[in-house]
Amino acid sequence: MKLKAMYAFLDADLQVIEKELEAAIQSDYSLLSEAALHLLQAGGKRIRPVFVLLSGKFGQYDIERIKHVAVALELIHMASLVHDDVIDDAELRRGRQTIKAKWSNRFAMYTGDYIFARSLERMTRIGNPVAHRILAHAIVEVCRGEIEQIKDKYRFDQSLRCYLRRIKRKTALLIAVSCQLGAIAANAPQEVAERLYTFGYYVGMSFQITDDILDFIGTEKQLGKPAGSDLLQGNVTLPALFAMENADARQKIVRVHPGTSAGEMKEIIDCIKASGAIEKSYALSDWYLQKALDILDELPKSKARSTLRNLAKYIGKRKF
Amino acid sequence: MKLKAMYAFLDADLQVIEKELEAAIQSDYSLLSEAALHLLQAGGKRIRPVFVLLSGKFGQYDIERIKHVAVALELIHMASLVHDDVIDDAELRRGRQTIKAKWSNRFAMYTGDYIFARSLERMTRIGNPVAHRILAHAIVEVCRGEIEQIKDKYRFDQSLRCYLRRIKRKTALLIAVSCQLGAIAANAPQEVAERLYTFGYYVGMSFQITDDILDFIGTEKQLGKPAGSDLLQGNVTLPALFAMENADARQKIVRVHPGTSAGEMKEIIDCIKASGAIEKSYALSDWYLQKALDILDELPKSKARSTLRNLAKYIGKRKF
Repeated sequence: MKLKAMYAFLDADLQVIEKELEAAIQSDYSLLSEAALHLLQAGGKRIRPVFVLLSGKFGQYDIERIKHVAVALELIHMASLVHDDVIDDAELRRGRQTIKAKWSNRFAMYTGDYIFARSLERMTRIGNPVAHRILAHAIVEVCRGEIEQIKDKYRFDQSLRCYLRRIKRKTALLIAVSCQLGAIAANAPQEVAERLYTFGYYVGMSFQITDDILDFIGTEKQLGKPAGSDLLQGNVTLPALFAMENADARQKIVRVHPGTSAGEMKEIIDCIKASGAIEKSYALSDWYLQKALDILDELPKSKARSTLRNLAKYIGKRKF
Repeated sequence: MKLKAMYAFLDADLQVIEKELEAAIQSDYSLLSEAALHLLQAGGKRIRPVFVLLSGKFGQYDIERIKHVAVALELIHMASLVHDDVIDDAELRRGRQTIKAKWSNRFAMYTGDYIFARSLERMTRIGNPVAHRILAHAIVEVCRGEIEQIKDKYRFDQSLRCYLRRIKRKTALLIAVSCQLGAIAANAPQEVAERLYTFGYYVGMSFQITDDILDFIGTEKQLGKPAGSDLLQGNVTLPALFAMENADARQKIVRVHPGTSAGEMKEIIDCIKASGAIEKSYALSDWYLQKALDILDELPKSKARSTLRNLAKYIGKRKF
């Protein structure tokens, strides 16, 4: 089943969100709008808004209210992508030129700042101080995750725990908060909002681990960048960590640096694949996915619940 | 009269704020704290907290409540300084190494993001959605100001209006909002909050114009950087705009580029001084200052009001 078919019943509401996203980054500064729209038009799965809307279905769903939360979450994700590009010297994202490549680093930084600020401004439209605080705190944690990622670059002796904490901050938290805030905006009972938060956290962990696996096993065409890019940039992810339990693979991996050649990278990737690290990584991703599905069983049965289930499975198991 | 003596009666409360500022950027990440504390310890006038506290005196002043607003405003100012350093390739700020020079550009970007996020998180402690929205909107405008400043670099044909709009967004708005939010946090009447906003706007305009004058007439020791640095970096400020009304001076100024030598810059600065542009700039700064003082007359007489008056005069007339 295709991703979008799973939540076809949300189509009209997602179109509202798309329009709101455009409106949120409108401005009278042609250059800024162009940069921001560039990113918007590059698309993306709009996973966070989908989680917001589905979670809202567990309460009194009102698109006119919940749309602000969905827009705010997607804007934060977009802002972090813009800033990520500054960091990684990435020339391409989703196969298009990044804002940085097109307009320079400093412009990307302020475009990111602007989108961040717009996100918080948008969130204040629901006038719920608890929701504002949850969002602000989530951004604090995302920033911490980004800083950890810089600190941990090319640090090959990092623990599994260190990796998991980093992906929690970098990815899982924002999905968890998407679910939680969707429920809060719809005035769902507190325990429902908490369960949805935990569900989102587990899905997010599974999602990021799968993402990190795909960076090794995907083709350049699927990824929009060469396989092993994360490792080449010093981002030590789960498959590399598991592979390093093998002394031979470890010896190869710890020598990776920004100048490692494509030929050497290919050899290292083959070595990681041969070590069984991919299978072990999938097993951990599956563990998180199963925890997510277990939490869902504690929520009232509904179309939203079965959609969240399908979505979680898709995200954890996806092949590209 | 020295600046700090003017508001000596706020000393105990300002110490509370200093402690809160440290606490706000505490984290378990030694490197992040070091970077953020580096900036904190570099000091600064804490002008924005002072405006918040004095404005709060027009309502039911409660330091335990208003401190969150004061901390939030100073954090935003600090975050924008960190990001400013990324932009300007500035090696020094207030005579100390910038975060960027010490830790790299990318680290400075995320440190700035982190401080921004902490600011908004802190603001949510007063639990007033209107205040949250005002702050978020102010950050949106500050970002716009920063983007305009990049766009307007080395654009010598810009209008006075363009300059004024830029400094409003870049500087005046945050002072205006400091006053407004101080009043709102203290539940002052709405018209008082509005007047304080307008007062802060006028003071901020006078402040930035004076700052832009000092960049031309200060010594390297006073400024912590060579005179004329703004112009050399392509930031076309009021004295340069006024000087360009003279054809001779204009011809010299429009040739400024990043490689202009120190000797050429000295000649250009002398030319700007000789044109009468400094006096004209001071006149406009004074005009804004007078508008600020006029607004104060519409507020109830109090120690806070006379302190705001002295502060406004000091800021508009300061010599370094």
